[in-house]
Amino acid sequence: MEVVGVLNPAAAIVGNEILLLLRVAEMPIQNERSIIVPMLDEASSDTYPLRYIEFARDAGGLDTSDPRILRYKGRMYLTSLSHLRVARSSDGVHFSIDPQPTIPPHGEMEAYGIEDARITQIGDVYYVNYTAASRHGIVTSLMETRDWTTFTRRGVIFPPQNKDVAIFPEQIGGKYFAFHRPDAGSFEPPSMWLATSPDLIHWGGHVHLISPRANFWDSVRIGAGAPPIRTEEGWLAIYHGVSSEGHYALGALLLDIDDPSRVLARSEVPTFSPSAVYEQDGFFSNTVFCNGVVQDLADSNRLKIYYGAADRCVAMVEDTIDNLLDSLRAKPVMV
Amino acid sequence: MEVVGVLNPAAAIVGNEILLLLRVAEMPIQNERSIIVPMLDEASSDTYPLRYIEFARDAGGLDTSDPRILRYKGRMYLTSLSHLRVARSSDGVHFSIDPQPTIPPHGEMEAYGIEDARITQIGDVYYVNYTAASRHGIVTSLMETRDWTTFTRRGVIFPPQNKDVAIFPEQIGGKYFAFHRPDAGSFEPPSMWLATSPDLIHWGGHVHLISPRANFWDSVRIGAGAPPIRTEEGWLAIYHGVSSEGHYALGALLLDIDDPSRVLARSEVPTFSPSAVYEQDGFFSNTVFCNGVVQDLADSNRLKIYYGAADRCVAMVEDTIDNLLDSLRAKPVMV
Repeated sequence: MEVVGVLNPAAAIVGNEILLLLRVAEMPIQNERSIIVPMLDEASSDTYPLRYIEFARDAGGLDTSDPRILRYKGRMYLTSLSHLRVARSSDGVHFSIDPQPTIPPHGEMEAYGIEDARITQIGDVYYVNYTAASRHGIVTSLMETRDWTTFTRRGVIFPPQNKDVAIFPEQIGGKYFAFHRPDAGSFEPPSMWLATSPDLIHWGGHVHLISPRANFWDSVRIGAGAPPIRTEEGWLAIYHGVSSEGHYALGALLLDIDDPSRVLARSEVPTFSPSAVYEQDGFFSNTVFCNGVVQDLADSNRLKIYYGAADRCVAMVEDTIDNLLDSLRAKPVMV
Repeated sequence: MEVVGVLNPAAAIVGNEILLLLRVAEMPIQNERSIIVPMLDEASSDTYPLRYIEFARDAGGLDTSDPRILRYKGRMYLTSLSHLRVARSSDGVHFSIDPQPTIPPHGEMEAYGIEDARITQIGDVYYVNYTAASRHGIVTSLMETRDWTTFTRRGVIFPPQNKDVAIFPEQIGGKYFAFHRPDAGSFEPPSMWLATSPDLIHWGGHVHLISPRANFWDSVRIGAGAPPIRTEEGWLAIYHGVSSEGHYALGALLLDIDDPSRVLARSEVPTFSPSAVYEQDGFFSNTVFCNGVVQDLADSNRLKIYYGAADRCVAMVEDTIDNLLDSLRAKPVMV
């Protein structure tokens, strides 16, 4: 196996440090005769046992048009296997990374890897939701930790196909809220929904929030980023959108503070798009994807926005809440 | 509009009567030039307002290979619009049917109709879960009633794509349980999952239960039928499976009484398949689909199994719990 990408980190403040939960994607070293797909060996009791499926390149019927996916005889596999790894920094720029996988995938539901975590701190507990892939599909699962050493898995909270879940950092009207991104098949392109929960484990009250917009930067697919931030004007969320050219960019969404199903404003143009060489060229090119944002401890207006660049590396851009709200005020696109 | 099918009834005992909640499917009268698709007019405040989309047959790009669905430019529509209607009987054979739609579709999430209800009685309350279709996809929603006159909608309990939900009639270990049938896209053919809930509104603890089996009668797609029945050997459930020829048949599933995620037995061959002319020839031919079963008040071993026949009409077949358990004992196919 070789690392093909370190990407899409969740972010949190832990003590005086900024903690990132990185997605580390590994791929078997390929050869000219075959394409090799990695997965967890569920039959083994080792910590992180692997097995491989080899597809002969001349077998025919292999679809490798998307580098992240292998399609064969109507079935889908992932070309890489991801785990989660903690990185810590006192300045938000220089990080020390755990030398081993902090959280390897585990069990039947995570056999194709775990990806794209989000961290929501509520009281002393850090809730980590993450995408889990397996032959049963793409689900979102939850784990919790207090010390970033011991992690307790709480199971699948959104069944297939569902990813891009972000849990709000506080209850509203006695209920927890989360964004999620179900797949409505051919009825509608992937859209953002909102759900409520009494306990973060069981979710209901599902409502459709926003859909991709034809002829905009987010016309093909959208999904939540990091957990939203409470501001004086409403819940501010950074989300990603995919354009008709397949480029991933970031935009902002403003929701009513008491009723987050009310959309107050939505970016007409991206707040951040791929422009640097490491954003335009990589494992999946022309991609910026954010699932980790922290507010500066000294000045809560200042944001550090961590993001995966071209599915290859992690980068950070600074912005302010005021600036994002200004951009929404100028162009209050309602839907 | 004309009625094209009365099908897939939920069933319950209400007082001394058997109550069916029928799905009534209506379709606009078509013409030679166009295909007309019906949907709810969400802009109107009438009880059951309709609007229509007309597709010119010579426009090209229309896919009508499945009579239930119209595909056009990558989007999916339903060719018929369903509502739910109550029918009552004292003998389980002769029914009087409400002259008007008892429960018409309502609101954004039900704009393409409501279908295939299941009834779970818990105490004095009848919980009715049903499939709701709209441009946002296929979801399962919940309503409740005590008197079959007033119905309270409790919202979407399983987000897209999810149908074939059946709620267990009692709590197990302090939690409610339900079968559901998420769509895992190209990862796995549609499979049965199990979820838990503290309140029937919010669902979590999702686990994969059983998948279609290659070279069996249920190789393409499976889904739960009516709510499962408590027996001395475990939870007995009748489910549907679709074969490689596209035929819908019924089979049985036996689950551990204390831990329904443990599958004890599963029908190797169907317990009931299309054989009568009204099962083999209809709107969607070679189909028997069950979502309503009642136990005889005088002899709880005797079951009345109501089912949709060829997506056209409702029929009933009698069987016994003993007979179904015997069939599973003879062939305990485990997965």
